[in-house]
Amino acid sequence: MSFRFEPRKLDGRARRGVLTTQHGVVETPAFMPVGTQGAVKGVPAADLEAVGASIFLANLYHLVLRPGIDVIEDLGGLHAFSGWQRPILTDSGGYQVYSLANLRQVDRDGVTFRSHLDGSPLRFTPRSVVDWQQRLGVDIAMMLDECPPWPCSEPEVEAALSRTTGWARLAREAWNPAGGALFGIVQGGIYERLREQAVSELVSLDFPGYAIGGVSVGEPLRERRKIVEFTTPLLPSDKPRYLMGVGTPLDILHAVQHGVDLFDCVLPTRNARHGVLYTRRGPLRIKNAGFRRDSRPVEDGCGCPCCRQASRALLHHLLRQGELTGTVLATVHNLWFFLDFMRQLREAIASGKTALWAARFDHDFAVSERPPPTDGS
Amino acid sequence: MSFRFEPRKLDGRARRGVLTTQHGVVETPAFMPVGTQGAVKGVPAADLEAVGASIFLANLYHLVLRPGIDVIEDLGGLHAFSGWQRPILTDSGGYQVYSLANLRQVDRDGVTFRSHLDGSPLRFTPRSVVDWQQRLGVDIAMMLDECPPWPCSEPEVEAALSRTTGWARLAREAWNPAGGALFGIVQGGIYERLREQAVSELVSLDFPGYAIGGVSVGEPLRERRKIVEFTTPLLPSDKPRYLMGVGTPLDILHAVQHGVDLFDCVLPTRNARHGVLYTRRGPLRIKNAGFRRDSRPVEDGCGCPCCRQASRALLHHLLRQGELTGTVLATVHNLWFFLDFMRQLREAIASGKTALWAARFDHDFAVSERPPPTDGS
Repeated sequence: MSFRFEPRKLDGRARRGVLTTQHGVVETPAFMPVGTQGAVKGVPAADLEAVGASIFLANLYHLVLRPGIDVIEDLGGLHAFSGWQRPILTDSGGYQVYSLANLRQVDRDGVTFRSHLDGSPLRFTPRSVVDWQQRLGVDIAMMLDECPPWPCSEPEVEAALSRTTGWARLAREAWNPAGGALFGIVQGGIYERLREQAVSELVSLDFPGYAIGGVSVGEPLRERRKIVEFTTPLLPSDKPRYLMGVGTPLDILHAVQHGVDLFDCVLPTRNARHGVLYTRRGPLRIKNAGFRRDSRPVEDGCGCPCCRQASRALLHHLLRQGELTGTVLATVHNLWFFLDFMRQLREAIASGKTALWAARFDHDFAVSERPPPTDGS
Repeated sequence: MSFRFEPRKLDGRARRGVLTTQHGVVETPAFMPVGTQGAVKGVPAADLEAVGASIFLANLYHLVLRPGIDVIEDLGGLHAFSGWQRPILTDSGGYQVYSLANLRQVDRDGVTFRSHLDGSPLRFTPRSVVDWQQRLGVDIAMMLDECPPWPCSEPEVEAALSRTTGWARLAREAWNPAGGALFGIVQGGIYERLREQAVSELVSLDFPGYAIGGVSVGEPLRERRKIVEFTTPLLPSDKPRYLMGVGTPLDILHAVQHGVDLFDCVLPTRNARHGVLYTRRGPLRIKNAGFRRDSRPVEDGCGCPCCRQASRALLHHLLRQGELTGTVLATVHNLWFFLDFMRQLREAIASGKTALWAARFDHDFAVSERPPPTDGS
């Protein structure tokens, strides 16, 4: 198996590492742009590389529905299909089954539901989800998990965790290690006892990487951070750690400082579509009237393709008019912001200055950060 | 005035020329992508240059409504605002006043109407339209004209033409030749007598360029071509000729062979959004089921950014799912197709092989060309 993770430098709990896959290397901590349907909304694969992405995330649930695993397999796998030649991670679709699908029935061996697109019946099992991701040829696959909503009582979370642990075993058995890496997913809600139990059971199955799931499901910021603080140190130090669906720059900064290596979130792309543009001094709501005559780029000194050609005034105009070009430019800027933020964070860790860099970033950014929309797809 | 046009080579009636403006050179015959609101939908300025555009068209009517001429002027003009440093032509908005606006009242001195966005009252006069375009700093401005629909009786067209001729005189007087070039617009519907009269009156005002307007307003293909065949030879041979809102590749091919130099049309961009993709063998309807597993690029051998990274199967999937990236890729391909088509046509004229090249193109393309949606915005 060509999958390998090397944590190269520790600064406090923050880790600077290198993740090697059959489609290339990912410097960690890394942010993975979300391309649910096999493409990041508004950003073709070549442009995604140009903004600095080294890995992106696609979603198994959506790809199973459209265009179907057999279609992508016939075309040579997800890399050939998407036109993206670097590493790809697919989410198992567990989250989407719980957030999008209808008439969901969970049993010991999997979950049966109806497509949110046309109501057609579908069944996901721990084995089928592994099999599909291997047929897609992804570099990192996620096991099927049961992701309870928030709030959820301890007995309910425990019952879901018990099924998830059984699914982890089945997934691990079904996985052919010749093809990429399968990550285990730690569930357990806000309950430390259950998170601890989840880690212990998953680690005994020896996955090549571990994700913290069941976050960004509606819980308050404080709960999300407590889960990260409690769970991350329990995970093996020689395996990559992935915090699913998180988050804002400050969430990521917090989690990196507790030892998380991988992140994905729709915030940069979704917020771009709503006219929320990231800067070091917090997000701008570019559709506000104050930007109508603002000839500056979104961020002074930013080297992204958006800031090199467009003013705030142009973005204000285009996004208010619902023009596609506004969405494209805003998405490119926000992705660049997140990816550049991760790059700077990696440098800070490498030079042992994480705490200082984080304090500065937090100081500059936090003042004006407004609550962004919650995560979804 | 830095505006200059040199027809350098004639092949039959087809002309290979060079149009020089204060923002650079346009090799003619040229196709101008349409960026109604100041941006081509889905294609930022830098990418528009990368697909081979040398000039684009924006629309005065839309820019007057949003963001307003004063905003663009404050920001340094339309080039600074749009981020596009090459030549820009603005349409006067005459067509939009007739196709989009409400409660329209035409009088001898201009047209009063209500915005299609919010119903606010507006008035366009020959002088205000000239003044606004000069404040935008465009390279080619269009006079205000009255563009009757099709069908329309000869007396009605004659009355509209009479007003348009009066407006031409007022526009010409208002124009400051230090700033770009003002084109006259030949109206007259399908009536040769009126077209002849229009040309004669406009030419006496000595515009730096002439447009054929009142086409692509719903008339049958045969009528459109007859207007082109009849009107073009009447226009001065030392001035650029612009056929407004036309058209399909075969329409353009026909008009170039009758001596037209400039074209604009929403077809490549609008059709892209509807999944109609141009190839040398005619348009593909990429959402058709037959493309679901088609691993080929849209066109074999095409060097565009879309064909270099995306298969027909990917475009089929993304456009069916309504994904932005599908629209972006399809738009880039279609613009490349139109611009490359013009480049090849210019080469054919330069080498005296226009008729041969046209016959080949027509043979390859016409078989599968389906009626595309009619032009609008």
